[in-house]
Amino acid sequence: MDIDAGNELVSRIKSAVASTNRAGVAGHLGGFGALFDLKREDWRDPLLVSGADGVGTKLMLARLLNRHDTIGIDLVAMCVNDILTSGAEPLFFLDYFASGRLELEQAQHVIEGIAEGCRQAGCALIGGETAEMPGMYGDGEYDLAGFSVGAVERDLLVDGKQIIAGHRILGLASSGLHSNGYSLVRKVIEISNADLGAICDTTGGSERSLGEVLLEPTRIYVRNLLPLLKDGQIDGLAHITGGGLSENIVRIIDSDLGIQINTDAWEWPDVFHWLQDNGGISDTEMNRTFNCGIGMVAIVRAENAQSVLEQIRNSGIECTDIGKVVPAGHGERVEYLAAG
Amino acid sequence: MDIDAGNELVSRIKSAVASTNRAGVAGHLGGFGALFDLKREDWRDPLLVSGADGVGTKLMLARLLNRHDTIGIDLVAMCVNDILTSGAEPLFFLDYFASGRLELEQAQHVIEGIAEGCRQAGCALIGGETAEMPGMYGDGEYDLAGFSVGAVERDLLVDGKQIIAGHRILGLASSGLHSNGYSLVRKVIEISNADLGAICDTTGGSERSLGEVLLEPTRIYVRNLLPLLKDGQIDGLAHITGGGLSENIVRIIDSDLGIQINTDAWEWPDVFHWLQDNGGISDTEMNRTFNCGIGMVAIVRAENAQSVLEQIRNSGIECTDIGKVVPAGHGERVEYLAAG
Repeated sequence: MDIDAGNELVSRIKSAVASTNRAGVAGHLGGFGALFDLKREDWRDPLLVSGADGVGTKLMLARLLNRHDTIGIDLVAMCVNDILTSGAEPLFFLDYFASGRLELEQAQHVIEGIAEGCRQAGCALIGGETAEMPGMYGDGEYDLAGFSVGAVERDLLVDGKQIIAGHRILGLASSGLHSNGYSLVRKVIEISNADLGAICDTTGGSERSLGEVLLEPTRIYVRNLLPLLKDGQIDGLAHITGGGLSENIVRIIDSDLGIQINTDAWEWPDVFHWLQDNGGISDTEMNRTFNCGIGMVAIVRAENAQSVLEQIRNSGIECTDIGKVVPAGHGERVEYLAAG
Repeated sequence: MDIDAGNELVSRIKSAVASTNRAGVAGHLGGFGALFDLKREDWRDPLLVSGADGVGTKLMLARLLNRHDTIGIDLVAMCVNDILTSGAEPLFFLDYFASGRLELEQAQHVIEGIAEGCRQAGCALIGGETAEMPGMYGDGEYDLAGFSVGAVERDLLVDGKQIIAGHRILGLASSGLHSNGYSLVRKVIEISNADLGAICDTTGGSERSLGEVLLEPTRIYVRNLLPLLKDGQIDGLAHITGGGLSENIVRIIDSDLGIQINTDAWEWPDVFHWLQDNGGISDTEMNRTFNCGIGMVAIVRAENAQSVLEQIRNSGIECTDIGKVVPAGHGERVEYLAAG
């Protein structure tokens, strides 16, 4: 590691990192470890929930577009949305950033993106490792990994055990593709010879290119859901990642339960139609590869569904009742219905 | 990700992962997050200490030698030795393993190595991410990142603040190069045209090739030091990583203090002489790149030094009094003296 470049990076990212601070952060000792003091925050009887993740080949799209300031948001999102599903509030985050040779500007953008993700999630960026591995990564190449620890009060742990047939399934809108399915995305770009610079989205009057739409950072659902979780209003949460709606929801319900999804309940955002049309992808494949517009799913008691749905909408994101929990039949546990 | 290969990997590593279990592990929920319950363990008033790290280009040596069962030990060691310096007991560990295409055998060896490291450190392997990133990593290439969280009782936090001039510096033997300086190591191998298969170490009657010596996994000091830390017998710990003895010890002492190292106090293991001789490396460069035989440093009150030294030796590793803390002079804070 070029020590001057390393020091310069630390100085450039200092204020972004500081902006993620929260009460529990208790400093570093000689830089070897990062301290967190739960007692400085208002916890009664917390359980720790942790997760590790990367952003997959969305990285290669960021590189292709030479746009590195949002991939860090994806990294944080992938970790914190996971731990949020237990009802946990993300407390702190650490990153691993590895490249062949430290490119200051690029590293700064990546880490500022991570800090932005941490601010959106309310967690502190308390540590990380910036590795230079010449020979292992080529010029301009890098990989990212993220780790997050959260806490949930023992009596507010969301474990899916309260879910019974009749519970409603609420779908929270994704911001785009989030961070899964990018190997298939790159294949579609290749076979359709797509122009990443072409304007493809004019929602709300702003023009966005295909590249921008595909690189849109993953939505972080912490601020939308945490108030409801602290009230015990949600019985299950599924982060819609690889495996899509088809595989992620059934992970959190009993094996004698299944789900019915009303495919008419929401419309796929344009980018998913573009992918399906240009890639010749079946509905089945779409549903188990992409989020198709639903990035997080909340499972709630039927009598609470309307109230929770409105609270989520009031928090600033689209939310739709997309189906219900049913007794598992003899076949598939996931049924897609068009109400017609 | 090939789902069958992924499932097969999970089944292959299941028992290794289970072997790292400890009381606080409280299960996974739908696979989204890993739970840890401090109350299931005997903690009074713990602070959390966390760290993230990788193993640098030692990975490329593992690949060159096609030997993947110990690099996971290095990964755990780099993380847990760091958090140990605060006096913390490592509680749990998560890994990030990224490759171009999942090679079952290789991934199994890597993760079994991580589990072995976790057993040595006494921490639970509670989660991780196995990523397939075709196009980003070539055949057989992979990268690793690790993340560990530990706990230390508030009144037993080791923060170096008790260290004054006169404190003794104890050097704990390294097992070899540990996980730093491998870009230089590979350069030395290249310029000296070294045969990695040549027998170069016959200590204790066992024959070890140069490759094996260079790949020797990083020593994990948790079990050697934890009993002393729980007794409050150590005022400072420095993990000797990149920067070597020259840069890591001064990180944990006040800026008005310096250190004197008696270079006659211990002998460099052969591999360091081999590197110096074949690479034409100065003493200064050696001391700030490699651990030169000392992988961890403990700083203790002078009157306790002999007792601590003996306790560490009794735990099964070599330990030597290698110098002392002094008032900082006007020049360098680190002085190397040959007692002669």
